[in-house]
This record gives sequence, C-alpha cells and structure tokens, in this order.
Amino acid sequence: MDSRISFSSDYTKGAHPQILQRLQETNFEQIDGYGTDGYCKSAADKIKKICGQPNADVFFLVGGTQTNQTIIDMLLQPYEGVVAAETGHVAAHEAGAIEHAGHKVLTIPNLGEEKDTKKYGDNIGKIAAPDLKKLLEKFYGDANHEHMVFPGAVYISHPTEYGTLYTKAELTAISEVCKEYKIPLFLDGARLGYGLMSKRTDVTIQDIARLVDVFYIGGTKVGALFGEAVVFTKGVTTKHPIPVIKQHGALLAKGWLLGLQFDTLFTDDLYFKISENAIEMAELLRKGLEEKGYKIFLDSPTNQQFIVVDDDKLKELDKNIRYGFWEKYDDSHTVIRLATDWATTKEDVEKLMSFL
Amino acid sequence: MDSRISFSSDYTKGAHPQILQRLQETNFEQIDGYGTDGYCKSAADKIKKICGQPNADVFFLVGGTQTNQTIIDMLLQPYEGVVAAETGHVAAHEAGAIEHAGHKVLTIPNLGEEKDTKKYGDNIGKIAAPDLKKLLEKFYGDANHEHMVFPGAVYISHPTEYGTLYTKAELTAISEVCKEYKIPLFLDGARLGYGLMSKRTDVTIQDIARLVDVFYIGGTKVGALFGEAVVFTKGVTTKHPIPVIKQHGALLAKGWLLGLQFDTLFTDDLYFKISENAIEMAELLRKGLEEKGYKIFLDSPTNQQFIVVDDDKLKELDKNIRYGFWEKYDDSHTVIRLATDWATTKEDVEKLMSFL
Amino acid sequence: MDSRISFSSDYTKGAHPQILQRLQETNFEQIDGYGTDGYCKSAADKIKKICGQPNADVFFLVGGTQTNQTIIDMLLQPYEGVVAAETGHVAAHEAGAIEHAGHKVLTIPNLGEEKDTKKYGDNIGKIAAPDLKKLLEKFYGDANHEHMVFPGAVYISHPTEYGTLYTKAELTAISEVCKEYKIPLFLDGARLGYGLMSKRTDVTIQDIARLVDVFYIGGTKVGALFGEAVVFTKGVTTKHPIPVIKQHGALLAKGWLLGLQFDTLFTDDLYFKISENAIEMAELLRKGLEEKGYKIFLDSPTNQQFIVVDDDKLKELDKNIRYGFWEKYDDSHTVIRLATDWATTKEDVEKLMSFL
Amino acid sequence: MDSRISFSSDYTKGAHPQILQRLQETNFEQIDGYGTDGYCKSAADKIKKICGQPNADVFFLVGGTQTNQTIIDMLLQPYEGVVAAETGHVAAHEAGAIEHAGHKVLTIPNLGEEKDTKKYGDNIGKIAAPDLKKLLEKFYGDANHEHMVFPGAVYISHPTEYGTLYTKAELTAISEVCKEYKIPLFLDGARLGYGLMSKRTDVTIQDIARLVDVFYIGGTKVGALFGEAVVFTKGVTTKHPIPVIKQHGALLAKGWLLGLQFDTLFTDDLYFKISENAIEMAELLRKGLEEKGYKIFLDSPTNQQFIVVDDDKLKELDKNIRYGFWEKYDDSHTVIRLATDWATTKEDVEKLMSFL
Repeated sequence: MDSRISFSSDYTKGAHPQILQRLQETNFEQIDGYGTDGYCKSAADKIKKICGQPNADVFFLVGGTQTNQTIIDMLLQPYEGVVAAETGHVAAHEAGAIEHAGHKVLTIPNLGEEKDTKKYGDNIGKIAAPDLKKLLEKFYGDANHEHMVFPGAVYISHPTEYGTLYTKAELTAISEVCKEYKIPLFLDGARLGYGLMSKRTDVTIQDIARLVDVFYIGGTKVGALFGEAVVFTKGVTTKHPIPVIKQHGALLAKGWLLGLQFDTLFTDDLYFKISENAIEMAELLRKGLEEKGYKIFLDSPTNQQFIVVDDDKLKELDKNIRYGFWEKYDDSHTVIRLATDWATTKEDVEKLMSFL
Repeated sequence: MDSRISFSSDYTKGAHPQILQRLQETNFEQIDGYGTDGYCKSAADKIKKICGQPNADVFFLVGGTQTNQTIIDMLLQPYEGVVAAETGHVAAHEAGAIEHAGHKVLTIPNLGEEKDTKKYGDNIGKIAAPDLKKLLEKFYGDANHEHMVFPGAVYISHPTEYGTLYTKAELTAISEVCKEYKIPLFLDGARLGYGLMSKRTDVTIQDIARLVDVFYIGGTKVGALFGEAVVFTKGVTTKHPIPVIKQHGALLAKGWLLGLQFDTLFTDDLYFKISENAIEMAELLRKGLEEKGYKIFLDSPTNQQFIVVDDDKLKELDKNIRYGFWEKYDDSHTVIRLATDWATTKEDVEKLMSFL
Repeated sequence: MDSRISFSSDYTKGAHPQILQRLQETNFEQIDGYGTDGYCKSAADKIKKICGQPNADVFFLVGGTQTNQTIIDMLLQPYEGVVAAETGHVAAHEAGAIEHAGHKVLTIPNLGEEKDTKKYGDNIGKIAAPDLKKLLEKFYGDANHEHMVFPGAVYISHPTEYGTLYTKAELTAISEVCKEYKIPLFLDGARLGYGLMSKRTDVTIQDIARLVDVFYIGGTKVGALFGEAVVFTKGVTTKHPIPVIKQHGALLAKGWLLGLQFDTLFTDDLYFKISENAIEMAELLRKGLEEKGYKIFLDSPTNQQFIVVDDDKLKELDKNIRYGFWEKYDDSHTVIRLATDWATTKEDVEKLMSFL
Repeated sequence: MDSRISFSSDYTKGAHPQILQRLQETNFEQIDGYGTDGYCKSAADKIKKICGQPNADVFFLVGGTQTNQTIIDMLLQPYEGVVAAETGHVAAHEAGAIEHAGHKVLTIPNLGEEKDTKKYGDNIGKIAAPDLKKLLEKFYGDANHEHMVFPGAVYISHPTEYGTLYTKAELTAISEVCKEYKIPLFLDGARLGYGLMSKRTDVTIQDIARLVDVFYIGGTKVGALFGEAVVFTKGVTTKHPIPVIKQHGALLAKGWLLGLQFDTLFTDDLYFKISENAIEMAELLRKGLEEKGYKIFLDSPTNQQFIVVDDDKLKELDKNIRYGFWEKYDDSHTVIRLATDWATTKEDVEKLMSFL
C-alpha cells in the first residue's frame, strides 16, 4: 500500500461512514431486487422533493459511462446523435460507449479553446448556446441534412471535466435553444455536489431540474461507494425503461444498495454538507498554493485545482504526495491536478502544503 | 418493510459480515481506480491459484447480465452467435442484451423437455454434447451456411437456471466438442459456489478451469454485495480487454470494491464454506418438505428447491412466508421455489417449516 | 457457362425485356438521385392505387435481407424483438442481420412441424394466430417480462420460404392478434407475385394492404433486375425514414433505377401477368411430375415444386438439368426443388420433362 | 421531366451503352447467385491483373455508404474507430452509418482549413501524414488511452469529396504511418477513375493497390448503373467475409449484375477511357469559365469544378441549367458545382457555356 498522501482524484476512498453504517444495519433484511424496494422509493421521493419536480422519474445506476450510455440511448432515435463539447466525457473518454450503442457524438468546440491569452480559459469544457444554435441552424439549413446525423439531444456536464461551471444565464440559454428545437438536454452531474456548493455559482439543483430534461446526481465521486441517481425531471419518455436499462447490463440485482446510499445522502442534506467540505478544502488548498507562489493553471471554482510545477520540484514531490498528471506545460514544467473530496480534512491539506 | 420470512431468492441480503468489515477497515485508504489496485491483484492471484491456472486472466465485473454481455461480445466475431440452451439466461431473461451487442443466441433444446414421465427432468436447463455436436455438424454441413449465423461460442450455466448440475463426464464431453470445432466454452457461474458444494456433484473448480475457456465465479448471489469474477482460464484472447469492458459500461471506477470482496471470499475458503451452508440448509429444507409430504417438483441438487403446493394452502402461506412463484402446475396447484443462501440459518428453516 | 437447363431458383435471370427497354430509353436522361425522381413517384402512385391505400408510403430498396433489416429496425424500439416462424428467412438465412441491428428474433414453431403423417405439412413455413397469441399472452402474463425481449412486431412471408400460402382467414386472424396487442404486422413478399397468382389462394394484394402495416412487393425474383417495393400501408410511422435507410446502406444513389422497374411492372398489370406465367408453368411441371410418378414432397401452390428423387436417378439428371438441392430424404433419396419463374417457357418445361 | 441541361452531379445518368448491351445479351442466361458466377470471377481477375496484385480479393457491392460501412466494420475491432478527415464522407454524409455499426469516426482537420488566403485550399478534403502521425502519437502517449477509442484504420478518399487528389508522395507518407502503427489504410474510390485520369496526378491504380490495404473502384459515378468493386489488395483478413457482407444487407442476390458491369468496364480499358472523357470535358469547361471571367472557387484537378456566381446571375441561370448548390459565398454570391461525367459531350459543354 502506498503511504503517500493522495490528492490524485475524488474517487479514491470508500463511502461516507453513515452509508457504511446503514449497509451494516440493513445487511440481513431481505429486500426485493432490481430497484423495486422501499429504499429506492424513499431516495427517489427525497430527490424529487429537493428538485421541486413531483412528476420526475428517478433511476439508480452504477457508474458514469454506463449511465451516459444508457440515458443517451434512451433519448435518441437510431438516426440521431448527441451534441457535446469536444472535451465532453462522452466524446473523449468512454472508449466509444456511445458509438457502441449506435450513435454519433456531434461535437462543438468547447469555450476554452477560443481564448488566446492563456492556454485554458475559465470556461473550458463548456459549450455555449450560440454555438449550439449555430450547429442546429446549419444542420437544418443544409439541403442534404437527411444524409447526415440528426442532432437528437444535448449533453453537458456540470461541473465539466475541467471543474468549470455554467452560470444560470448560460444554462438557461442552452435550455432555450433545446426547447426551440425540441431536443432534450442531458446534464452529467458526476461531480454535481461540488458544483452546487461552489462559492462561485448561482445555479441550484432546482434550477437544473427546471432547465434540463434529464440529469444525474453523482454518488461515486461524492460520498457513495458507487452509484448515480438519474432524474428525468418531467418523467421518463421511454415507454419501458427497465428493459432498456437491463439490456445495457445496467440493472443492479441488489438495487437497494443504490437506493440506500442515496437515501442516506439525501437525508439531512448530507450530500450538500459533504460536498461543501470538498469546496472548503479546495479553497484552503488554493489559498495555500497562491501564497506559496504556485502558478494557477486554470481558475477552477470547484474541487479540482490545477497548477504548473517545475519538473525538478515534481520529482521531489513524487516522494511524498500523489497527484493527477494533467499534461506537459512546457519543456521543464508540468500541469498537475489536485482534487479534494467529501472526506478531505484540514490536516490532509496542511500535510500536503508542508510538502509543496 | 415486509416482516415475513423470505426464501424467495438468493440475492435478498447484503454481504458476508467479513466483507462489510473489510470495507469499513479500508474505507479511508486511497486506492487506485479501475481495477488496477492491489486488492484486485491479490484476489486474482488467489483465484488463479485455486483454479490451478497460473496463466489465467481475471477481471471483476458488477453483475450477471453485464458479464454475460461483455464476455460473449469479447468471444465472438461480428458474424457469430452464441449457442445456449433455450432456457439459458442469455436466451430468455436478459432483455436481449446479447442481441443488443449484435449477436444471435442460437438455441438448442435443454435436456428437460425430452422426458415425458415428469414435467421437468433432472437435467432441465442443461445442454448435451451430442445436441451441440448435431447443431455444429448441421451448420457446417449446410451448403448455405455462409448465409447463416456462425456458432462462435458455447454458453452453459452451472448450476443452471433450474439449479441442476453437469457431471464431470458431461462437461468433458461438451468441452471436447468445443475443442473439436475450435469454439470457446463459456460457463456462467452466477451460483457457482452452490454447484461446487452440492452433495451430488463430481465437478470441482479445477475441473471447470481446465475444461472451459472462460467462466465466472458469482459473488452477487454468494456472499458479496455484488460482483462477478471472470476467469479466462488460459489467458484472455482479446488484445485490449479494458476498452471493451469500458465500452460496455462495465468498468467500475472504484474497482477495488470488487477486488476486496473476492479477496475476502477467497481467503480461508470463505466462498466455499458459506456456499456449503446454503447446501446444508437446502438439504434440511428438502428433508422437511418430504416429511411433510410435499410433492417435489424438480430434483435439484443445489440451493433452490421446487415444490408443488395447493392453491388454497398457498394463500395461507402468503401471510407468513415469501417464496418465488415459478409457474402454475395445474388449475389448483402452483410450483414455488424456495431458495436458501450463504446466510440462511437453521432457525430460518425451522421457522419456515413451522408455516408449511 | 453451364449449358444445362436450370430450374434451380427464381433469381437466375435478368429482367423482363420491357424493363431493359426502358433502361435503354431513359439511359441519358438526367435524373435526380436517392429516390426523389418522377419514376419513383409514378411507381409509388401506381402501387398505392392498386393497393387501395392512398395514404400509404412507398420506398424502393435493393434486396431482401437489406429490406427486412431496415424495415424491422424501423418498426421496433431498441428493447423489442420481432416474432417470426423458426423457418422464417429473418430467423434462419440472413446471417444475423436482424441481431446485427440489435434485435432478437422471437421464434414460434411453424405449422409444418406439428404433423406427423408426412415430413412437411402443407402449412409449413407459416405461423398460426393462436400460436402468436399464446406467445403474447405468455409474455405479458410473465411477472418478469420486463427482463425479457418485448415482442414488438410480427414478421410473416407470403409465399413462405417453402412456397406455402396463408388463407385470407388465417391472415385476418394474425392481423387481429396484432391489432389487439398494438404491434405492427410485416409481410415479406419477396415472391409476392407468385403468391397472388396462385390458383389456390383467396388473398389479393388489397387484402394484404388492408391487413398488414407494412409489406414489400418483391422485384428481384419477379421480373426486375433487382429491387423490393416497401409499402407502409397506412403511412410510415418513423419520423425520418430517409436517414434510417441511408444508415443501413440501403439508399440507392440512382434510386430511379428502382422506380423505373416498378413503374414498368405496375403498368398494364405486367407484374401479375408474368407472375401468372410462373404459376402456369409450375402447374404444367407438377402435372408432368405426377404423371411420371414422382413423389411430391410438399404440396406447394406456388412456383416452387418439391419432389423426392432416387439418388441414382439424380446422378443421371445432374448431367442435363440444374435444380435446387433441398435435403436428404433418406439414405437413397433426395428432396429437390424445381422453381419456375416469370420467364419460364413451355419449351423449358418440356425440355426438363424430357430428362426427368 | 426537367429539360434543362444538367451538370449537377455525376450520378444522374444510367450506364455506358456497352453495359446495357451486355445486360441485354445475357438477360436469359441462367447464372448462379450471390457473386459466385463467372462474370464476377472474370471481372475480379481483370482488376487483380491491372492492379498488379495477384493475391488480392475482390468483392462487388452496390453503393458507397454500404461499402464504406461494410469494409470499415470488417477492418475494425469493436473497440476501434476509423480515422478520417472532418470532411470525409464517412464523417459527414452517411447518416451515421459507421456509428450504427458501432464505431467512432476519429476526425483530423482536413488540409483546406489551414490556409487563410482563400476559403478553400487546393488540398481541401485531404489529410496529411504528419497530422495522422500526431493523432496516433497523442493516442498512444496518453496514459488513459485504454479509456479512449483506439484508432484502428484510416479512411481517405481519392478524389476527395472536393475533387482534390493526393500526390504519390503524400499517399506514400500516409501509407508509411499506417504501416508503422500496423493499422490498415482504406481508400474510398467512389470517383476513382476521375482521379486516375486527371492531368495533374502522378498516382496510378498500381500505386494505390501497392500503398493501401483496401480500396474500391467506383462504378456508380463512373459508367455503371451501380456498383463498387472492393479490392483487398493483399487478400481479405476477415475469416468469413460473406456472412459479414450478408449481415450488412450488402450481398446482392443477382451478384453477376455487378460482375458483368465491372467486367465490361475493365475490358479494353473502358473504365479509363470514359473517365478520361469526364476530365477532358472538365478542362474544356474550366477553360470556358476562365475565359468568361468566372471566379474559380477551388482549383479542382478532376471532374468537379467550383465557381462563384452572382446571385442575380444565378436566378437567370436557373431557367436553363442545373448545377449543384455548394454553399453561400457572401451575401450576394453563391458557390456552385458543375460536374462532368463519363457521358458528357462537347456539345453539352458548349450548350452550358452558352448560358453562362
């Protein structure tokens, strides 16, 4: 076992202790399978309530790629593709799971690339409503569009893969373009808690539930052992969602393990409190990094911080800390990612800072 | 919560307490993701050792349908299908997951249907080597076979969906047909422990590892919270298995949760001991049922027992016990399934018997 | 080139001379692509008129497997399969094209197998409404049907792969079951003309257009170089059929080649007249075979005749005629198929008979 | 019927008269199906000979999208995608046929976009070996590449969708990168003849056959009614190509129709002669356009010419000629495409010029 302190990612630990405790308490209850149990119902009810969407349908799946693949396949007709940023997880890092299910990912540039002043802008990872509209107008304006892939849904992530966030105005604008073209908007919230509790956001979970057609509340990276809660905010449109989920190998036999975890996370605002912890620890870390004079690579408002480190310094750091390699900055510097999470303590940050 | 005693299935409870304890102990360790951690390695090593197959490759997936879909897709060329019994799980109860991945399930009759004396024979759910050979001979003997689906792999389950078991001779015969035709043999072991510990089997895990090309050791139904350990007994033939697994949404981010569970189950023979418990409880139940004069519907050597119950009696039972509805026997009788598991106690069986 | 006279199948010759003539006449016209031309429109109008279905949508595809795959994919939701006879072309002889598009073929026994008195009954290849209803009732009656493949459409062929025909009563009964369960009925008419012109049918093209949701009028085997005219009798339900067809590689660039052929075939009843020729030649052949004492294997009312021939006699025949090998009858006899077509002449039959 | 003279595309006419004549001559021959006939063999032999590749395997398919989909599916493992220019036909204009078969199209910028001086450069539509190498290096250099789509084949078209051509040096460089990374190179030759007969090319069919792993010789746009001849230059690597072709609905029943057409085209260099005609007519047209002072939009060396026309002028032209709309140039001008083909006459060009 590696004894170095790790800030390499936000999915390196188990689950919040309350979750383990409830697993312990319910271990010998005999519970119905495939998500038909009371814990799933209770968790779904709490989520619908907090979202302010009483007609929502909630499903619990196991992981991110599985969820993206299954939901997108439910949203699209066979001749349709999903629009995403070039840097979107479904476009770049899911081994072709969307294409495996028969659909093209139609990419639009993410906002980060348009700025020249620094390598990544503060909007990197995001798409903009005008770019989306341009794609849709161009598609329908093309006389040959029946020979092309129809844009059938829009995928965004919040926070994005780079930890950046949409403003309420940006999200509203994207939502309006989707409504105008009658295509569903899907928000990947694998790190949703960290976005919602950012000090620099005006977007609430109710806003999201109102503005998108389907989104998911990430558990794997925010306090659960595993699990993503999918919310079809106005109800699911697929007539038979269970066989679709089953067909994707995504129907967990002991579905209550997911319900129980989300029921715990959505009791007494646990999900939000532990998300807030990650944000506070990230701010502390950020302050420390700035004080030590580290070059901030990307101005992230969430739990992931990116800095530029001299390669000699990095070799030294390797002895004591674990971080995420991001990319080479130049010949003698590297960009690294430091991620806090629901369980990061002040002591962890201080220990990390002592090595930096 | 339903307070009736339940024998409805073997996936109604959580995990063996030792597993929960280890989850607790390791909760704040920071562990590498996607199955690259030490617990997965340790579990794989133990499994390879017990199988007597040092060159095996072991992968840990989450659930049964996901595993069947992913493995079969790895084994087949696009123009190939998988041969299975008509009653095979992949043929009947996976919502078309195999076809969703582009492959036909080529069915052969299961052995149960050929007997007239009772509704189900003791071999129900199994396929026979001669039937398999007949299918292969017929296929290659057909001048038009290039217009048909090539049989590219064989799927069997042990125990079968009906709790029945292959003998070593039967398994050897099937394996030999597969070798003759150079097609891989895949054994679904979702309930493998209960098969291996049956009082009426001559098949060991080493036999299976020797005779098949790939099989899995079921965790979900045998002591784990979830998880199936896939063993490519002579090494995996797919050049890049990870992207295939990822593409099927089957690569768990916190892969160590699987490794840790199987490492626990394969320490000190825990997997076998808890499987044996289910068998002993099933035998006790069986004896009690016979003594009470219940008609045994299917002579199952594993943890699932099937009996014929008068419908009036069943209404009464409904108040106190939970069972698996199997099928209508005749106008006034019903076949029910009573399943024991790794956690069933003598007291559970006695309580059940008191109501029967 | 083989100079023996051939009755081996009905797709061994080119096209009706009028078709070649029109290809010649229009060769240097400059015509719009992808089926948007006037010939396609004219052919579609004629077909809609003869079908008595003014709201029908007509598409022209190239071949049978392509058509079956594309249409079935248009009819089904991703979690649905198509019901067909075990002997149905989509079940047995299309190299898994339906599964390649992600759908299971749900088979029901064909009627021929239930009779013991002769190897094939006169209904072989057909399904029966009660069997279809039984499948649907069983499916919806199964508490676990959400874990199974939903029956989402029904495929029949008329004539069947064995040359047999549905009666109007049988077709009506199947249609009614489909309506009751709200699933579309699809009729494969690769040899439709030979079915419609049989002396032993009470089914007209108007009956078919009224009773099914979609069917196709085979051109490849009935006078065209290639091509199948697909008729969605009450209009196509897929919102964007063209991209679906394109996505299956089934959108012919020079679509007018299809329109022109069907426009020719549906001018002055040419399609029916040349189909009638095949039937008359088949009757002549049948009469001759009976007179010569050949054992009729299958009582086919269409253009394919099946007889049992002594193997020694067959070796002799091989020198002068070409036939379709069907299957071994017993150790010393073989079943062969003799097929007439739109171009078979009386002289051809007489020449054949001279060798038999 | 539209009586205006048309230069709108190169697939608006039927076939070279010699092809129609041979269809006529062979119409009542009885020929074996599915490409097993002598005409297919003869055509394949001629193609192998002219390519200088005696071990090649040749298949005849019906149309471009079908061919691209089938071939790419044969080349790739399920976890692999195909690399193509952003403007490549498979990336942009096939309604997602590649994704429908489960594969991602991995795009690289085409060369045209890098030039600022004019809207399209003379290399538009092409990819460059260094860009390809960069993509491959980046992929294999990424520590997480097992979570990404593997580049498993490279798709180029020659001529490209814009009528531009690779030089022998460029093609050789791309081929060498493919060899270095052991991935097959696939060349879409839907308009191959027009590329080979360009006055401005140093690439021969033997060069192509030597440098790529698979390519096709387009018939649909070059003198045939329909059909594309696929050449696996060193032999096909798929063990069973026929079921793959069948499974894609791409196995023509009367396969000899394809063989016969290509046999005609590759007898006495007909394919090359008629391609040359298109080039000569394009040069004549080009000269006329330049003389009349039309702004040449894209310097195409093949049969497609692109010019910029004032919108008022265009309205006038609409009365007399048909052209391909390409795109808006600015508020008052439009880019149009004028395509010659195998059948274009000097009179056609003169008539067109009289309107321009």
